[in-house]
Amino acid sequence: MVYKHGGNVYEISRDISADLNEIIDFSANINPLGISEKVKTEIIDNIDSIKHYPDYTYKRLKDKIVGYHREMCQITEENIYLSNGAADGIYNLISYLKPKKALLLAPTFGEYEMALDRVDCSVKYYFLKEKNGFRIDLEDYILKIEEDIDFIALCNPNNPTGQMTDKEDILTILDYCREHKINVLLDEAFCDFLMDESDHSLIDELLKYNNMYILRSLTKFFAMPGLRLGYILSGNSGVIGELKKTSPPWRINVIAEVAAISSLDDEEYINKSKENLNIEKAFMYDKMKQIKCLRVFEPSVNYIFFKINQGFCSMGIDLKKELIDRKILIRSCDNYVGLDGEFYRVAIKSRNENEILLRSIGEIFGGL
Amino acid sequence: MVYKHGGNVYEISRDISADLNEIIDFSANINPLGISEKVKTEIIDNIDSIKHYPDYTYKRLKDKIVGYHREMCQITEENIYLSNGAADGIYNLISYLKPKKALLLAPTFGEYEMALDRVDCSVKYYFLKEKNGFRIDLEDYILKIEEDIDFIALCNPNNPTGQMTDKEDILTILDYCREHKINVLLDEAFCDFLMDESDHSLIDELLKYNNMYILRSLTKFFAMPGLRLGYILSGNSGVIGELKKTSPPWRINVIAEVAAISSLDDEEYINKSKENLNIEKAFMYDKMKQIKCLRVFEPSVNYIFFKINQGFCSMGIDLKKELIDRKILIRSCDNYVGLDGEFYRVAIKSRNENEILLRSIGEIFGGL
Repeated sequence: MVYKHGGNVYEISRDISADLNEIIDFSANINPLGISEKVKTEIIDNIDSIKHYPDYTYKRLKDKIVGYHREMCQITEENIYLSNGAADGIYNLISYLKPKKALLLAPTFGEYEMALDRVDCSVKYYFLKEKNGFRIDLEDYILKIEEDIDFIALCNPNNPTGQMTDKEDILTILDYCREHKINVLLDEAFCDFLMDESDHSLIDELLKYNNMYILRSLTKFFAMPGLRLGYILSGNSGVIGELKKTSPPWRINVIAEVAAISSLDDEEYINKSKENLNIEKAFMYDKMKQIKCLRVFEPSVNYIFFKINQGFCSMGIDLKKELIDRKILIRSCDNYVGLDGEFYRVAIKSRNENEILLRSIGEIFGGL
Repeated sequence: MVYKHGGNVYEISRDISADLNEIIDFSANINPLGISEKVKTEIIDNIDSIKHYPDYTYKRLKDKIVGYHREMCQITEENIYLSNGAADGIYNLISYLKPKKALLLAPTFGEYEMALDRVDCSVKYYFLKEKNGFRIDLEDYILKIEEDIDFIALCNPNNPTGQMTDKEDILTILDYCREHKINVLLDEAFCDFLMDESDHSLIDELLKYNNMYILRSLTKFFAMPGLRLGYILSGNSGVIGELKKTSPPWRINVIAEVAAISSLDDEEYINKSKENLNIEKAFMYDKMKQIKCLRVFEPSVNYIFFKINQGFCSMGIDLKKELIDRKILIRSCDNYVGLDGEFYRVAIKSRNENEILLRSIGEIFGGL
């Protein structure tokens, strides 16, 4: 796997000699509402806190996380492992668990495989099929969990496809894995965006499974990916404790901490974000479906996965390149295992930006 | 080893129900000049950059680091590995090198051993002797490098003792280690504070040794430990490349990046910091030496190591506890291998704060 991260807006801006702010970045899946003004104010008001090392117990932040999930589960500080972004959590968990053989979805978020490679874990793929709308077929999936597999990663909704796996299906997989002593990393980095989160998130089952590690991200929903903050929740407080003990101290910087503390109980921003996304998601999906040369998969959260239909594809249009010429950055999915250059992912952004993207795609395909 | 990190001013403030700003923290070794106003302004001006993922190439920051060291060495981007604080650099380097048997100074900074433990590396100690002023005896040290040792860490100046190892001695150790295929982590986290840095830092020898990894920290000298930013320099660009490839992406958050970029060519702050420290260091050392019940070791940078002399010690005074009652936090060295409860370390702070500490110690020992 030749792995590249998603679009790097800085690199693109250097490549095409454009100012960073001129580029509309649809490659990073960030809350279209943007950073809350309250968070910015909190950061500025607390800027002098950079003169201290972070509180390495991160007590205030953990209390807020407990509160954030209180409706779904009574977790405590012992169930929380903080990480310097979600990727850091994936790496540290896998470094600690040291699995030997893993089953990954294909396509899925690339960092699981990067982290597994580092501990020399062999990787098998469960190939999601386009004809199934890239959804997991439960029976088929369970069959693919070979006897010596000791680790699986599930991303729900899956990235980049946006497809959800039913909660009942995940519970069946969890039961199977518990019985067979298989650790499960369940990546819920985008679950905050769901209107009906409790119908999909497994957090309410957290304390029942000591083989489940739920990954969450604070920086996507709260629109601050520059700050780096994720966390792992698990009912296995033994592993959480060991992870803390064996990780570098002070991993979360104080600005990320201040921003998270100020965000997690900001009900107004949380509700407004979900409502706004629901409107924009419906708008974008509806409009994109009308572009004939695209097959658009129904989005669940703040990004849309699509392909250029056969035939149109053979016109030799490199959509990413064409859009970069228009200072629009989207995610080509050609470097995901199980996908090729026909597939793309775009974030759902503000109405104005979404319209610019739609218009540009329309122009590129000449109204097809 | 029961390891504790240095003082956690947040925890102490909770313990004694004091406001964070009421406590004078001598336990963290931070530039007494404090954060530069220029850096604060830069952070505030660039606050909207948190809406983007960091530039994972960190090109601008690396260019600044190249410039910062240009007088000592012509390094390039290929010689630099950025880390989320110096501790993160130690952990990632050791995770990658996976040494089997290491020689550490005792006492020294505790994170090396924590990181070595994580990869099941066995640890031998070279015990620094009080009668030698806690300095390395070169011949004796080389003798202690047993045949199967594949990793050593040297901290220069050493933490917590503040003692320097001569550059010539380090070169002898480096030559010996190169010949015996031993990797050397040389921690220069405090070298920025030296007036005559080039007489002590090994950066000018960087490209000659492919077994040397020099650790630097940006957050101590630039007084922003809350932001987390360190880096490893090495002539072994192969290992640096592998470290980058196997580490989680986006490890440095954008606020730390902005602050570092704005600091590294701030000649005025750099020069003023060194001059100010030299004055305060001389003042503190002179005054502390006059306190009869203390043995004070000559400081090299921004912290002072001392012990309570036998006899006074038996008075049963717990200096750290006595000072906490006065809302002053110092570092007890009782949890360093090779030290006991008689030893302490204090940062050198502003004149006013230093005088408060001196007065308080005087009071505690009743003018002894």
